[in-house]
Amino acid sequence: MKRADYPEPFAQLTAELRRLPGIGSRSAERIALWIAQSPDAHPERLAQALLDVKEKLHPCRRCGFFATEEECIICRDPARDGREICIVEQATDILALERSGAFHGRYHALGGRLSPLEGVGPENLRIAPLLDRIANENPPEIILALSADVEGEATASYLAELLAPHGVSVTRIAQGIPAGGGLDFADDLTLARALAGRHRIGGQNPG
Amino acid sequence: MKRADYPEPFAQLTAELRRLPGIGSRSAERIALWIAQSPDAHPERLAQALLDVKEKLHPCRRCGFFATEEECIICRDPARDGREICIVEQATDILALERSGAFHGRYHALGGRLSPLEGVGPENLRIAPLLDRIANENPPEIILALSADVEGEATASYLAELLAPHGVSVTRIAQGIPAGGGLDFADDLTLARALAGRHRIGGQNPG
Repeated sequence: MKRADYPEPFAQLTAELRRLPGIGSRSAERIALWIAQSPDAHPERLAQALLDVKEKLHPCRRCGFFATEEECIICRDPARDGREICIVEQATDILALERSGAFHGRYHALGGRLSPLEGVGPENLRIAPLLDRIANENPPEIILALSADVEGEATASYLAELLAPHGVSVTRIAQGIPAGGGLDFADDLTLARALAGRHRIGGQNPG
Repeated sequence: MKRADYPEPFAQLTAELRRLPGIGSRSAERIALWIAQSPDAHPERLAQALLDVKEKLHPCRRCGFFATEEECIICRDPARDGREICIVEQATDILALERSGAFHGRYHALGGRLSPLEGVGPENLRIAPLLDRIANENPPEIILALSADVEGEATASYLAELLAPHGVSVTRIAQGIPAGGGLDFADDLTLARALAGRHRIGGQNPG
């Protein structure tokens, strides 16, 4: 007699669920049981949503935000033409700023920040496309909305120096965002205050 | 200008993830971001696992455990012929007992327990198939491995009385399982001790 275990399809589902961030083996089994047993589970709907994200979602060619067309909804909005470009580390930071309602320009996601320890240099960030955008879109101001930690500081300094010859004002959002924290943990009010308190760190005087 | 939000495929995935047990809106967004951004995510594999569970997995016709064929791996194991039948509430309890390694017979999942408050009566449980099995398989003993709470007690009493005329010994696992708790939270040793300490509550003397 062999001790029985879950059949293969169940074990496979549990293994795939365990790969998701924040899901341990106990949670994975609990979710798999619910999917296998509950008449309300409709696993085919989750399966379709997963396939849709894989097939239909990609980074906006211009700013790096999530898009279903070539450019995202923000870059396609003509009301944002000719305004500031706000530089963020990740595409997800864009949504945090949008939700604050305090910014009305466009964004540029670097895809990370400088981190020598993790082997991330300027060549690993979307900096060349940023320079193209500054030349093409001629924004009145570049706002750096980077994390308030060592790597964020280093990235801000690097960009301020890099952008100085480009004749654009470069500002940085105020340290209203909690020190050491990333953008995605800040609440709307904190983000709005941080935007309002931004200070110039290089380039020309605006206007 | 409208505030941007995640595109439709992303919002749909987040909504489906939130329906899973134990996943809040913050976790759902975090998982969806990982799926949308990480090159290691392979969402098509999770999608396939979900569809496989839906298509290939069903309850064993005999005992109610998870099966990919008509009968589960336990009911198909000839080494378990002619042994005790262990009655549990849910198919998931079967795996907890298998993992304890203390039982070598077959199982019968009732699909719940008597609960007048929740409108669950004997007609809602898999009791008629149990009587058929007792007639066909002629087990030496019926072991009740039900929860140690009021509904579990009521279900055990009901079954002991129901099975008395069938000429089979009916035992119940000892209260080594934590009072008020379900089977799926008990550790292997507790389950093994509970099985070893079972006591007869009706029917004939075994052997």
